[in-house]
Amino acid sequence: MNAQNSPIFDPLHNDSFLRACMRQATDHTPLWLMRQAGRYLPEYCATRAKAGSFMGLATNRDYATEVTLQPLERYPLDAAILFSDILTVPDAMGLGLSFAQGEGPRFATPVRDEAAVAKLEVPDMAKLQYVFDAVSSIRKALTVDGKGRVPLIGFSGSPWTLACYMVEGAGSDDYRLVKTMLYSRPDLMHRILAVNADSVAAYLNAQIDAGAQAVMVFDSWGGVLADGAFQSFSLAYTARVLAQLKRTGAQGQTIPRIVFTKGGGLWLQEMAALDCDVLGLDWTVNLGRARALIGGSENGPGKALQGNIDPNVLFAPPAHIAAEVARVLDSFGTPYQGTGTGPTHIFNLGHGISQYTPPEHVAALVEAVQTHSRQLRT
Amino acid sequence: MNAQNSPIFDPLHNDSFLRACMRQATDHTPLWLMRQAGRYLPEYCATRAKAGSFMGLATNRDYATEVTLQPLERYPLDAAILFSDILTVPDAMGLGLSFAQGEGPRFATPVRDEAAVAKLEVPDMAKLQYVFDAVSSIRKALTVDGKGRVPLIGFSGSPWTLACYMVEGAGSDDYRLVKTMLYSRPDLMHRILAVNADSVAAYLNAQIDAGAQAVMVFDSWGGVLADGAFQSFSLAYTARVLAQLKRTGAQGQTIPRIVFTKGGGLWLQEMAALDCDVLGLDWTVNLGRARALIGGSENGPGKALQGNIDPNVLFAPPAHIAAEVARVLDSFGTPYQGTGTGPTHIFNLGHGISQYTPPEHVAALVEAVQTHSRQLRT
Repeated sequence: MNAQNSPIFDPLHNDSFLRACMRQATDHTPLWLMRQAGRYLPEYCATRAKAGSFMGLATNRDYATEVTLQPLERYPLDAAILFSDILTVPDAMGLGLSFAQGEGPRFATPVRDEAAVAKLEVPDMAKLQYVFDAVSSIRKALTVDGKGRVPLIGFSGSPWTLACYMVEGAGSDDYRLVKTMLYSRPDLMHRILAVNADSVAAYLNAQIDAGAQAVMVFDSWGGVLADGAFQSFSLAYTARVLAQLKRTGAQGQTIPRIVFTKGGGLWLQEMAALDCDVLGLDWTVNLGRARALIGGSENGPGKALQGNIDPNVLFAPPAHIAAEVARVLDSFGTPYQGTGTGPTHIFNLGHGISQYTPPEHVAALVEAVQTHSRQLRT
Repeated sequence: MNAQNSPIFDPLHNDSFLRACMRQATDHTPLWLMRQAGRYLPEYCATRAKAGSFMGLATNRDYATEVTLQPLERYPLDAAILFSDILTVPDAMGLGLSFAQGEGPRFATPVRDEAAVAKLEVPDMAKLQYVFDAVSSIRKALTVDGKGRVPLIGFSGSPWTLACYMVEGAGSDDYRLVKTMLYSRPDLMHRILAVNADSVAAYLNAQIDAGAQAVMVFDSWGGVLADGAFQSFSLAYTARVLAQLKRTGAQGQTIPRIVFTKGGGLWLQEMAALDCDVLGLDWTVNLGRARALIGGSENGPGKALQGNIDPNVLFAPPAHIAAEVARVLDSFGTPYQGTGTGPTHIFNLGHGISQYTPPEHVAALVEAVQTHSRQLRT
C-alpha cells in the first residue's frame, strides 16, 4: 500500500501498533503482551478480590475498564486489549460458564450429542452487551486530550477453540471428547463450528461498533488438530469469521485483523491465505523463516507477524531477558522502514503471561524491546 | 544402500519393520503402536493388578515379558516394544520414581539447584539390570523355531525429556521450573543434559547387548521448547546419545535408531542431520511434505518416516478409522518398492494409545493398514 491510499486510523497519541499491523514503518517495534491484564499484577488481584470472581470482574464494565488499563500505567505498551474471556460467546448460548477458584473454565451444559447440537444457535448479542459496554468504557478511559493513548484490541476465541470447550465442558489434556465427535460425527462438528463462526463474527462486529480498533481471533487449540483436520475444522471456520467481519469502523477507519493459532507453525503458508492482516506466532516458530515465507516484500502482499518470545523467559534475571528479547528481534531482522508497506513485526509473547511472573521482569522486557528495536533501525 | 551391502538383521519370521527402518521395500507398511502394551487391554490390567503397581510391573522380568507380548497375541503387529517407562534412568540416578494411582510419574527428589545438579552422575547400569533382563526374557519369549516372530524395540526418554521430569518432579502444563533453569542457569541445564545423554547412551547400548533389535529415543517434550532452545537443549543432546550408540549387535546385525520428537514438525530439516535411520512424526505433520523434505530418493540418503495417525481416531467407528488410515497412508504415497533403498513408511500413532481405546477398534486399524498398504503397492 503506498502513501496515496494509506489506511485511516482513529486519532491516537501512539498508533505504532495499528501501523505495524498494516505493514507500515514505525520508529520501534510495537509491543503488547497476551493476558497483560492478569494475575501477575497485584493491582489486578486487588480488583478481582473486590469483584468477587473472574466473571464478576469480566461482566462489570467499571472493573473491566480498571484492569484493562492497569498494565498501561506500569509499562509503555503500544496497545490495550479488552479484558474479557474467550468463552463469553458459548456462555451467551446458554452453556453456563463458571470459573472455580484455582481451576480453569467449566460449562454446566456441555454439547455432546445430536440434540444438544441441534439446539445451538447464534446468541442474541444483547446477552453480551456487558462486553460492548466495557469496550466503550475502555475507549473513553483511554482518551486523553481528545485522542486515544493507544488502540484497543477486541477479541474472541476461534470457532474450533470454542468448540473444544463446548464439547469437553472444560480444559482437556487429550481433547478426546471433541475429537471423538470430530472423527465419528463430522456432521455435528461442522454444525457447531458454523454456528460458532457466525456468532464470533457478530460478536467481533459488535465490538468494532462499540469502538474496538483492531480484532484478534485466538485459535488457542488449533494446534492440537491433525494435518488435514486443522484445515477443515479450524482454518475454514476462521476464514468464515473473517469473511463476515467489517473492514472499517464507523468513521471509515481501518480495523486490522489478527489471527493466532497456537501450535500452527506448520500451516503458515495455508494461513497466509486468510483475509487478515497479522498472524500471531508461538515460540516454536523461527521468525526469520516465517518472514521469508509469509512476511511479503516491499509494497507487495504479506502478513505482519506478531510474537513470539517464550513467556518462561520472564522467569530469568533481567540481563538474560534482554538477551532473549534481542534474539527474537534479531531473528525477525530489521523491519520495513520506507513510506509504503513491507515486512513488520509486533513484539509479543508466544502465549499468555504466567501468573507467577515478577512484574519488574516485565519492565525489563519492555525496556529491552524499546531499546533494541530502535537500535535495529539505525 | 544396494544389495551388495544390505544390512544384516537377526533371523526373524517377520523383518518388515527392520527393513522399512533401513529404507528397504516391504510387501505392506509395517505397523506397531506407541504404548501398544497398555491399559486399553483388559489382559494388561489383569497383569498389572497381579503386579500391584506400575513399577511392580516394569521391574519384574516375567510380568514385563507377559505384557509386552499381549498386543501381539491380539493383532498382527510388526514389532514388539519393551514394556518399561521412559523414567527408569533418572530413577537409577536416585531420584525416587513413583506412580500414584490415577496420576502421572513423580520424583521424590527433583533436581532444582546447583547442589542437586552437581550430585548427578551416570548411574551404575547394574541398577537397571531388571530392564536388560526383561529384554533378554522378551527375546526368548518371541522366539519360535529358532527365529523371532518380530523384532524387539528398546527405548529411552531423550536427555531433554528426562530433564523436564527431573526438574519439574512430575508432569507439567507450562514447564515453568525446567524453563526457568534453562533461561536463568543454562550452565546447570547443560550439565544435567550431558549426564543424561551419557546415561541414555549407556542404557541403550546395554539394551542392545541384551538383545534389543532397534532402539528409539522418545523426545516427548522437545516440542515445548522455543526455536533456538530446541536445537541447543534437545537436539544437540539427542545427537550426543546417537554418537555413542553401537551401530550393530553382538552378531554384527544392524540396529536401526528411531528418534521421535513430539511437536518437532517445524525442525524436520534440522533433525534430518541426526545420525539415525527413522524419524517419528506426530499427527500435525503432513507425511507427503515430510517425505519430500527428508525422505530422500532412491539409493540416496534420507530417513524412514514413522507415524502419524491421531490416536483419537480410534474412538470413531471402524469405517471412519479405515478412511483415516487410508488418508495417512495415501499422504505418504507409495513407498519404495525396488531392491535398493528409498523412501519408506512405518505406520504408527502420532502419540501413545489412549487407555480408553476400544480394543476392537485397534483391530480395525491394523486390518485397514494391512489391506490399504498392500493396495498402495499394486
